[in-house]
Amino acid sequence: VITFLSDYGLEDDFVGVCHGVMAMLCPRARVIHVTHGIARHDIRAGALILEAALPYLPVGVHLAVVDPGVGAERRAVALALADGRLLVGPDNGLLWLAAERAGVREAVDIAHSQFRLERVSSTFHGRDVFAPVAARLADGVALADAGEPFDPDRLVRLELPRPTVRRGEVVAHAVHIDRFGNVQLNVTHEHLPQLQLEHGQSVTLHAQAGKPQVARYVHTFADVAKDQLILYEDSYERLAVAANRGNAAAQLGLSVDDELRITAQ
Amino acid sequence: VITFLSDYGLEDDFVGVCHGVMAMLCPRARVIHVTHGIARHDIRAGALILEAALPYLPVGVHLAVVDPGVGAERRAVALALADGRLLVGPDNGLLWLAAERAGVREAVDIAHSQFRLERVSSTFHGRDVFAPVAARLADGVALADAGEPFDPDRLVRLELPRPTVRRGEVVAHAVHIDRFGNVQLNVTHEHLPQLQLEHGQSVTLHAQAGKPQVARYVHTFADVAKDQLILYEDSYERLAVAANRGNAAAQLGLSVDDELRITAQ
Amino acid sequence: VITFLSDYGLEDDFVGVCHGVMAMLCPRARVIHVTHGIARHDIRAGALILEAALPYLPVGVHLAVVDPGVGAERRAVALALADGRLLVGPDNGLLWLAAERAGVREAVDIAHSQFRLERVSSTFHGRDVFAPVAARLADGVALADAGEPFDPDRLVRLELPRPTVRRGEVVAHAVHIDRFGNVQLNVTHEHLPQLQLEHGQSVTLHAQAGKPQVARYVHTFADVAKDQLILYEDSYERLAVAANRGNAAAQLGLSVDDELRITAQ
Repeated sequence: VITFLSDYGLEDDFVGVCHGVMAMLCPRARVIHVTHGIARHDIRAGALILEAALPYLPVGVHLAVVDPGVGAERRAVALALADGRLLVGPDNGLLWLAAERAGVREAVDIAHSQFRLERVSSTFHGRDVFAPVAARLADGVALADAGEPFDPDRLVRLELPRPTVRRGEVVAHAVHIDRFGNVQLNVTHEHLPQLQLEHGQSVTLHAQAGKPQVARYVHTFADVAKDQLILYEDSYERLAVAANRGNAAAQLGLSVDDELRITAQ
Repeated sequence: VITFLSDYGLEDDFVGVCHGVMAMLCPRARVIHVTHGIARHDIRAGALILEAALPYLPVGVHLAVVDPGVGAERRAVALALADGRLLVGPDNGLLWLAAERAGVREAVDIAHSQFRLERVSSTFHGRDVFAPVAARLADGVALADAGEPFDPDRLVRLELPRPTVRRGEVVAHAVHIDRFGNVQLNVTHEHLPQLQLEHGQSVTLHAQAGKPQVARYVHTFADVAKDQLILYEDSYERLAVAANRGNAAAQLGLSVDDELRITAQ
Repeated sequence: VITFLSDYGLEDDFVGVCHGVMAMLCPRARVIHVTHGIARHDIRAGALILEAALPYLPVGVHLAVVDPGVGAERRAVALALADGRLLVGPDNGLLWLAAERAGVREAVDIAHSQFRLERVSSTFHGRDVFAPVAARLADGVALADAGEPFDPDRLVRLELPRPTVRRGEVVAHAVHIDRFGNVQLNVTHEHLPQLQLEHGQSVTLHAQAGKPQVARYVHTFADVAKDQLILYEDSYERLAVAANRGNAAAQLGLSVDDELRITAQ
């Protein structure tokens, strides 16, 4: 299995030709498209989604391409994780969260891999470098044959903003907004005991852009009336804000990276 | 084969992780994406498209998720149809048109299925309930093992507006508008003899929003000049309105559910 | 392998039901979606992308549908190319660039193919004619059994604008603009020696819509500062204009077919 995540979108043939290259080099590989809807060049969104999706994907080769620095100095890498997964992509932070969580056992630089296509363009390494290396790895070649080994400690890291959590108050940041306008915050399952919210409790949401709004801390959208705001633990065990059948991000004037202060009522 | 229809869109990883879950639980299943572009929460559009698409899909497990009530009271179900197909999805009307047409042989409530993922979120039953059950069914487990049996007569039904058809006049409703602006009406092949239109005949379209416009009753777009309106039997044998290389819905000011009166000239 | 390119988009079930039909008629075929994001009815964009993508796709059956004249006079065809590939689609120029490059060995008209679905609609030949024929070909039937032979010289051709290239100046046309706003020109690798540009050299871009702007002739986006324009050989070996992390088409006011004059400084 090869899984494939990118910011290529589906309007052009970028995804299709990468798929074609993989099908030529490893005909028996099955390709699962995680998403190609990452906002252009948004390395952090790609990193967050890759990390969150991995537990729901079969162990295999995980190709990820969000690559604003294509053709420039950034390293191209393939990583073997401690849990048996292989990651392939640019070394710009995109792979960091997934790699850090599982631990990296082995890292190779594939910029000059013998498995690249014969002609490597300067602007489409997804097709010319990453897809062919991913396909060969899926076909069973050893990671060591795919490139030059290097110290995993030298991988580019990704820094996320940190929340401030105390009893009844959290200063969080919007880290991801999905197509429904649901806003994922940088507050995980582990922070929740500290926050001491009770099911059904009302909270106040203070976004910088607008005036404070009330939400209820519940399990799911249908626990409140239409368009009402909820604070909930989302399906990735992160604290999130949504509006029942509405768009919470629009309602709160929240964009990715914005601060959101939440206080218990 | 598992076919998969939803309103998840492709911008996020919703579809990808459902696919991943299915690939983990039934590696040999092939997944065909019917569409994930159903408008958010539009149960009826999902139901119409599922019903219309089924005859063109291999018999298998048909997963459909448009689920505004996720995590709330609505039942989660798997159905065995009389034609051998298995449907999996929320019991909110989404499966009704397809189920009604073929007839339901057996129905089980899968809300607490043994095949659910270990941890079930309150907001993403596509991943945690529906996809795993669909995968197990595709893998050959018996429907009875997937949940609690219940009387198919208790399935949630979907009411569609009914057209009024008489010789030379029909009062119809727009039930679906595709990306080209072609407007599908709630008038099927069976109504046509009653209407007694002749090929090439002109008709007048009376939408509530705008002034009457002329269309011709023909077979295909290219039968008229650019931007001219046609009334035709579409590829699903439903009466529809289109504009040659144009957007009929915009031209007529029609939205889904709007009434459209058609009179022969 | 069947590859599939169209202007159907992914909002509706057009692609899904074509896939379903192919899966029914040739269960072992693997389908690779090249893209379904071709602009509606844009035969030329489809033809350019098909031609460019083919070298990166496994040899197989290549289904392409951009079909504004569906149901009208245009021929429906299947072609055997000299390189072993099979093309299936409407004969409206869409297949021409790919066919011309490889050379056509055999052509059949499939409008009345025995492999069509039993009921052929007037508006969805992708599902009723092209997909079933593609599936049967992938399943191994002979091209001659798929339709009526005709002289490949009678295929509809596609004329592209030609550039004027001389030392230090080229009058080009925008032939394709991708989702990032990168503008592909009708100037290929073979024209470059004539143009005599040197790496790093500055050029002036004269679009008809705006005032002249400076770009640098380099390898990749990151060779210049953010939002600066580059002239480069793109991943398909065509001359192209881009803006580092920006949208060159918007910046230059360029649309497809517009003329762009480039002069060396």
